Amino acid sequence: MVIKKAGGLSDVVAGKTEIATVGKKGRGLTYRGYAIEDLAQSASFEETAYLLLYGKLPNEVEFEAYKSKMAKLRGLPAGLRVILEQLPAHTHPMDVIRTGVSALGAFEPERDRQEVREVADRLIASAASILLYWRHFHLDGIRIDTETENESIAGHFLQLLHGRKPDDLHEEALDISLTLYAEHEFNASTFAARVTASTMSDIYSAVTTGIGTLRGSLHGGANEAAMELIDAFATPDEAEMGVQQMLVQKRLIMGFGHRVYTVSDPRSDIMKRISQSLSLQANDWQLYHISERIEQVMQRKKKLFPNLDFYSASAYRLMGIPTSLFTPIFVIARMSGWIAHIIEQRDNNRIIRPIAEYTGPEQQPWISIEGRA
Amino acid sequence: MVIKKAGGLSDVVAGKTEIATVGKKGRGLTYRGYAIEDLAQSASFEETAYLLLYGKLPNEVEFEAYKSKMAKLRGLPAGLRVILEQLPAHTHPMDVIRTGVSALGAFEPERDRQEVREVADRLIASAASILLYWRHFHLDGIRIDTETENESIAGHFLQLLHGRKPDDLHEEALDISLTLYAEHEFNASTFAARVTASTMSDIYSAVTTGIGTLRGSLHGGANEAAMELIDAFATPDEAEMGVQQMLVQKRLIMGFGHRVYTVSDPRSDIMKRISQSLSLQANDWQLYHISERIEQVMQRKKKLFPNLDFYSASAYRLMGIPTSLFTPIFVIARMSGWIAHIIEQRDNNRIIRPIAEYTGPEQQPWISIEGRA
Repeated sequence: MVIKKAGGLSDVVAGKTEIATVGKKGRGLTYRGYAIEDLAQSASFEETAYLLLYGKLPNEVEFEAYKSKMAKLRGLPAGLRVILEQLPAHTHPMDVIRTGVSALGAFEPERDRQEVREVADRLIASAASILLYWRHFHLDGIRIDTETENESIAGHFLQLLHGRKPDDLHEEALDISLTLYAEHEFNASTFAARVTASTMSDIYSAVTTGIGTLRGSLHGGANEAAMELIDAFATPDEAEMGVQQMLVQKRLIMGFGHRVYTVSDPRSDIMKRISQSLSLQANDWQLYHISERIEQVMQRKKKLFPNLDFYSASAYRLMGIPTSLFTPIFVIARMSGWIAHIIEQRDNNRIIRPIAEYTGPEQQPWISIEGRA
Repeated sequence: MVIKKAGGLSDVVAGKTEIATVGKKGRGLTYRGYAIEDLAQSASFEETAYLLLYGKLPNEVEFEAYKSKMAKLRGLPAGLRVILEQLPAHTHPMDVIRTGVSALGAFEPERDRQEVREVADRLIASAASILLYWRHFHLDGIRIDTETENESIAGHFLQLLHGRKPDDLHEEALDISLTLYAEHEFNASTFAARVTASTMSDIYSAVTTGIGTLRGSLHGGANEAAMELIDAFATPDEAEMGVQQMLVQKRLIMGFGHRVYTVSDPRSDIMKRISQSLSLQANDWQLYHISERIEQVMQRKKKLFPNLDFYSASAYRLMGIPTSLFTPIFVIARMSGWIAHIIEQRDNNRIIRPIAEYTGPEQQPWISIEGRA
């Protein structure tokens, strides 16, 4: 039976998964059965990554061992550092992380399918090192040591970025954000990574696919686009007028609505509270109030709810994270979900190879080059 | 309506295409309406790439301009050469080309969607340079000049590989092989590249996805696996016994059958004749006769026909191409098809985001770390 569908494969079940539910009753999200609200409130990102990759929440002994293992995986091979130094200062950070991960696959290839979780841990632990080694080399002309003593990946990232021990609230906020971004069923980047894995390719290829797919403005790039939107306004009133005008012009407003959620994005509520806490701490409410006003306009005019990307923008800004690193942070988080899916794809593999409806020309007679228009 | 399917999306129409038909009546292949037999016999790979990317066969003036443009795009940025020098000698060449293409995206980013065909030409023209610069640096300790005077991409590849003007028959054989490998509808790597493009990501990301997906042994890696199979036998009789034994053991025989073709692979007949011509020229029939015997056994025992990968193996060996470069050659060819599809996806885009059937645990109550098993 051949099934014909409009583009985008929306509503097409492309496979089975045990990893996450998205949008049950239009709103819920669970990772391996655990509600995103519980994970955000009570689990660190490392616990979440462990849950996704190893299939269970770690006990105390396992978790201590995991954290200490991850902290030792932050160094970069000398050859990779040279490569990062060669990538120009104006490079899009998503191109840096895509190239860095691809190159790491040359230095530390996946030799054996049993190694996949080792490679996973290595990639998640070293992604911030790749990005921030490159950044400091080109921005500040220094070769940083990427091995910090900070226990968490969120803390490691902020410490490398700012060159000092991070504020506790910032570290906690980024940690929760990583948990929220970690996994999301058959989103485009995860699905693309599964297609790559389905040919029996290696984990670096599949993760590189994930990065390249996340880079687009309709996917991971949306949090950067949301920041640009918010930055375009100086006050809530300006935002209200501006967004109404954009709606009249039928321009796309990034950070709202979702292909799968129909009622609300459960991650957005959590992220909104984080943005609120950070605004309170900084005693700087400008971005938060502008964001809230945009949310109200979108609700009133379009009945659209904010998705995770929207309040992530102001929260990241309040932590001092440059906009160009928003999507790369999404990469660090989502690697855990991608690799859980790569493992699942391998465990019950069939090459993912759909067919197309042909709408091109009928068969053409051959015309030699002299006779062509 | 939610459509449930077994894995692999076989028989699911994932979109429309005007670029190629595959397997009409179980056997045919056309690129933009032209039969693969006509293209292989009468068009060079450059004409084929032009047809795929620009939508029409070039006339004489267009074709001269195209060839001369392509010949000027073979140099590599100095920074990319340094990066290639850093990738270890033991690196899988598919990891080299994946990383090299990703890095080229840092040096020469796609700044404007109008540039996509410029980037396409650059990638197709310089892919052999990336591979063979890296190879000679590590194998021979030399930094080659990647700009040859050879007019064709096939000739450029062979000249860089062997360091001398290629034999005419070899150049023609490789040229035809590139045409045969150029395009194949929604195969896994092309489909994955379209998923990447569907998020509005850039062309380098989408091509990098294609490379990583092609790398797997169920896809592009099959031509290397076919060579290993043929190499395992010294005579046709040995091959007959060996393959029969493998069939009894239910081992996978690479290079036979196809997801979409059911009667025959039209490319295989062409490639078989090429392998025959090369054997005749070399007066060395060993690989050809072993291959033919394997074909007979597979036909008799499994009713399976050889696909393009099978006779490509002996043909490439007879041109002196090392096995590890078989899949990278497939990359050079298929880039033209990938990018034609990336352009088509962009022209009528909707993000490709299927859904999954959830088969994991029911919602779990939260357990704090002290209480976990």
